[in-house]
Amino acid sequence: MSKEVIMKLKKETMSELVKNEAGRWVPVEVNGQTQIPFKGVAAYKPRGKKFGPAVSSCADYPADGNKQVDSLRTALVKAGLRDGLCISTHHHFRNGDLLANQIFDIAKELGVKDLVWFPSASFPCHEHLIPYLEDGTIHHIEGSMNGPLGRFASEGKMKGVGILRSHGGRYQAVQDGEVKIDIAVIGAACADSFGNANGLYGSSATGLLGFALADSQYAEKVIVVTDNRVPFPCVPWQIQGNYVDFTVQVDKLGDPEKIISGTTRITKSPDRLYMAELTARFCEAAGIIKDGFSFQTGAGGTSLAVSEYFREIMQEKGIKARFARGGSNKYLVSMLEEGLIDYILDGQTFDLEGVRSMSENPSHVWTSPFTSYNYHGKGNFAGMVDVVILGATEIDLNFNANVVTHSDGYLLHGIGGWQNCLFSKTVILPVPLFRDRIPVIVDEVTTLCGPGELIDVVVTERGIAINPLRKDLLDAVKNSGLPVKTIQELKEMADQICGVPEKPVFDDQIIALVKWVDGTVLDVVRKVGEKP
Amino acid sequence: MSKEVIMKLKKETMSELVKNEAGRWVPVEVNGQTQIPFKGVAAYKPRGKKFGPAVSSCADYPADGNKQVDSLRTALVKAGLRDGLCISTHHHFRNGDLLANQIFDIAKELGVKDLVWFPSASFPCHEHLIPYLEDGTIHHIEGSMNGPLGRFASEGKMKGVGILRSHGGRYQAVQDGEVKIDIAVIGAACADSFGNANGLYGSSATGLLGFALADSQYAEKVIVVTDNRVPFPCVPWQIQGNYVDFTVQVDKLGDPEKIISGTTRITKSPDRLYMAELTARFCEAAGIIKDGFSFQTGAGGTSLAVSEYFREIMQEKGIKARFARGGSNKYLVSMLEEGLIDYILDGQTFDLEGVRSMSENPSHVWTSPFTSYNYHGKGNFAGMVDVVILGATEIDLNFNANVVTHSDGYLLHGIGGWQNCLFSKTVILPVPLFRDRIPVIVDEVTTLCGPGELIDVVVTERGIAINPLRKDLLDAVKNSGLPVKTIQELKEMADQICGVPEKPVFDDQIIALVKWVDGTVLDVVRKVGEKP
Repeated sequence: MSKEVIMKLKKETMSELVKNEAGRWVPVEVNGQTQIPFKGVAAYKPRGKKFGPAVSSCADYPADGNKQVDSLRTALVKAGLRDGLCISTHHHFRNGDLLANQIFDIAKELGVKDLVWFPSASFPCHEHLIPYLEDGTIHHIEGSMNGPLGRFASEGKMKGVGILRSHGGRYQAVQDGEVKIDIAVIGAACADSFGNANGLYGSSATGLLGFALADSQYAEKVIVVTDNRVPFPCVPWQIQGNYVDFTVQVDKLGDPEKIISGTTRITKSPDRLYMAELTARFCEAAGIIKDGFSFQTGAGGTSLAVSEYFREIMQEKGIKARFARGGSNKYLVSMLEEGLIDYILDGQTFDLEGVRSMSENPSHVWTSPFTSYNYHGKGNFAGMVDVVILGATEIDLNFNANVVTHSDGYLLHGIGGWQNCLFSKTVILPVPLFRDRIPVIVDEVTTLCGPGELIDVVVTERGIAINPLRKDLLDAVKNSGLPVKTIQELKEMADQICGVPEKPVFDDQIIALVKWVDGTVLDVVRKVGEKP
Repeated sequence: MSKEVIMKLKKETMSELVKNEAGRWVPVEVNGQTQIPFKGVAAYKPRGKKFGPAVSSCADYPADGNKQVDSLRTALVKAGLRDGLCISTHHHFRNGDLLANQIFDIAKELGVKDLVWFPSASFPCHEHLIPYLEDGTIHHIEGSMNGPLGRFASEGKMKGVGILRSHGGRYQAVQDGEVKIDIAVIGAACADSFGNANGLYGSSATGLLGFALADSQYAEKVIVVTDNRVPFPCVPWQIQGNYVDFTVQVDKLGDPEKIISGTTRITKSPDRLYMAELTARFCEAAGIIKDGFSFQTGAGGTSLAVSEYFREIMQEKGIKARFARGGSNKYLVSMLEEGLIDYILDGQTFDLEGVRSMSENPSHVWTSPFTSYNYHGKGNFAGMVDVVILGATEIDLNFNANVVTHSDGYLLHGIGGWQNCLFSKTVILPVPLFRDRIPVIVDEVTTLCGPGELIDVVVTERGIAINPLRKDLLDAVKNSGLPVKTIQELKEMADQICGVPEKPVFDDQIIALVKWVDGTVLDVVRKVGEKP
């Protein structure tokens, strides 16, 4: 493309962009839908009514409650699968999902075009769908694109623009009617023919099904697919059959080894263990670890190590946590069983111990993006958590953070519950100073996912930076002997070791939006360009 | 009133009435709202969208999740209590409720007028509200009026027209936006300051809170009141705090002895025991009691006896039920614990054993009017129950039944889940042939609550009448030796004993509507007139 053409395109594109409150240029319309620019962390006030799908009547459903049809294809056809519909799936099967690909295989066979795929997340196993993105079976993906699909989008090859939302933002978008789901397909490890379903029992056990909750409540048509049908009633019903139109039995929903780890493992890297230790020591020094406190660590190797350090401190001091937020894993479960935690409030189970505990222990409670993360509710659980430990691909000098793109500009991760967790009372990001000789702390994040005002502490193997907005934390750890630095100091250390990294080159084409928790547009992701 | 005036009034009133599919004259408008006449049991097809209350934002709720205010009065004022609003309550406290009266005491103090009270049921303890119905604080009651309030309405003294709905019909009306709840006040035996609540623990324990589910989901403002506040999280959350605006702590919500029986008791009347035995023998002969079957009996003395006869038959034959529907009681709980029932699917607990079992046993499952009874869902549980045992105040020769008025014309009972249960595969009404020398089987029911086509069997102490529509049942028990009669024969027996009873006299004034499960108007209740 000539420079003139690019400039012309740039001008045309820019004319549709506005600068949002975070200083990012964002479009006012995408995929034919009006978009609201980010107004500030808590500034946008919604005005509408919650979405209402069509009222149903029992007169249109089998009197004996048996909604079983012979195949997924039949269910999709009966649900009215046709051009342009929005089809939702959930990601509890993670990279072991065998269901989503089948839906679009069927759509392709039926010659259906321009579908919107609305997964709660997509994984490398969904690379299978790239031909359907190319041939127009799928118009675009609204949902996180982990790995190959993200790379495909970053190359500018997706017809529509991807929309990235947090778990809570996804619930919000469905509840508020921003995304109208035509057909929800919900895979469940255990279900009855009425459609009551859970993720607790069976070879495709996922623990829970919360990521499909909004889909069941708000989609026009709901299909429950199981490889483990039980007689009515399937108890507990994490998904209520009263929302379900059709049920389908299949041989195999997922690949158990890829759904869930048989075992989760703590990092063995000395640097990461040190970061974890620093994080825990920081929490102790800041007075966060006290009787009745609450925490969310996550399931990465470093996070698991943080939990273990928490355990040591709690045991030593005789402290009990009121609750921990999952993703659950065997470490958290053992803390629950030892009585160090009163409750696990869980959003997803990361290993088999998590599944077992949830199925046995009433204090291991399943939650949903509605209870935990929906910003357009009357409060949610995220704000009540004392401390949350999260990751990031990049953090900038204003504590803004990125979780979706790498420093090379490629979109390779989803947002997950990350944005939602930023509302915790203290947000700590333990990150290495650099990865593959690319500094993590940068002048300005490639993609803005989390406004710096919500990010309190950055812990690296070379020191801890505290957001100047948190004077209370700065004061609390003043005499703790912890290696507190400014974020500028941390950046300089990284730059000295790695040199100043090359910046990625972008085309103007917007390939994805990053939504804030309230549905406004926080930032865009652009097509990665060729280096000159 | 002169005869001329009465005739004129009759004409004026009649001009607004239409004859519905059940042959009853019903008004097309009541309380300023358009009404749809009953179209047939499953004939009316809803066309709208589910109601959506206003979208909220976490920005408007306390960041730490603490929604506690200092009093119910403060909560009501903050919720915007003013003239003409619709205030909802639930009836899990039954005749021990100390909360509903307080709401209207506050309304009276504040000088608020013309409120609509939308309880899931009202009880004799709410007689306290009669002065507020008289002075215009409350305009009318939408909900069942057990006892004194029903009598008050029957005397033509309520300003508006009462609307009687089944439990499922109440959920349907709220979901469909027929009733828009402005403020829901939910009393909970156990709750946290965020609003998560259950009925399981505490001195006002009610077991569950399902009757308040629709209120929490669809009301514009929701207040949770508890006398047993626990630290977040209150687990399990039968009511989700994410729907709640304000929480209030009080000393005492209910009078435990009147909320729940310490003990439920089987009838000792020989006639009723015989009816119960006949009912059970009928079910056995008809092949209903078989492995994996399901039943709902209820908590009346006769119903409890039916359960006990079921137990004997099941033990004898080595039969296990897949599930029983509650109202639960100690008899049902013991069957669950003995392994005679896989699950109790419970809508309300009638005694302390029910509460205990529900709090301990994951197979004792709490349900709601949504899962069990909502006719405007994608199916519900009621249709899946093999046999249900219900009562009636009157049954006519077409098997139509009445549960709300007595033969003297007074409105003294609510519909409860009765209409919803009529969708069970077999509906049996064990009723005495007469009560206080008033025959139960009549030419035409005073008030039509259940169309005869849904009522399969009437069991009396003098014989069993099977609806001619159920040829299968007639055939099944042909050679059983059971005393099968026609319903005409039963009526003749009663008339011979009691003589033909005096008919009640009614004024034209319509004092209440009886809704069908789909929101259409099945019948009206009129003011009881003076006998000439």
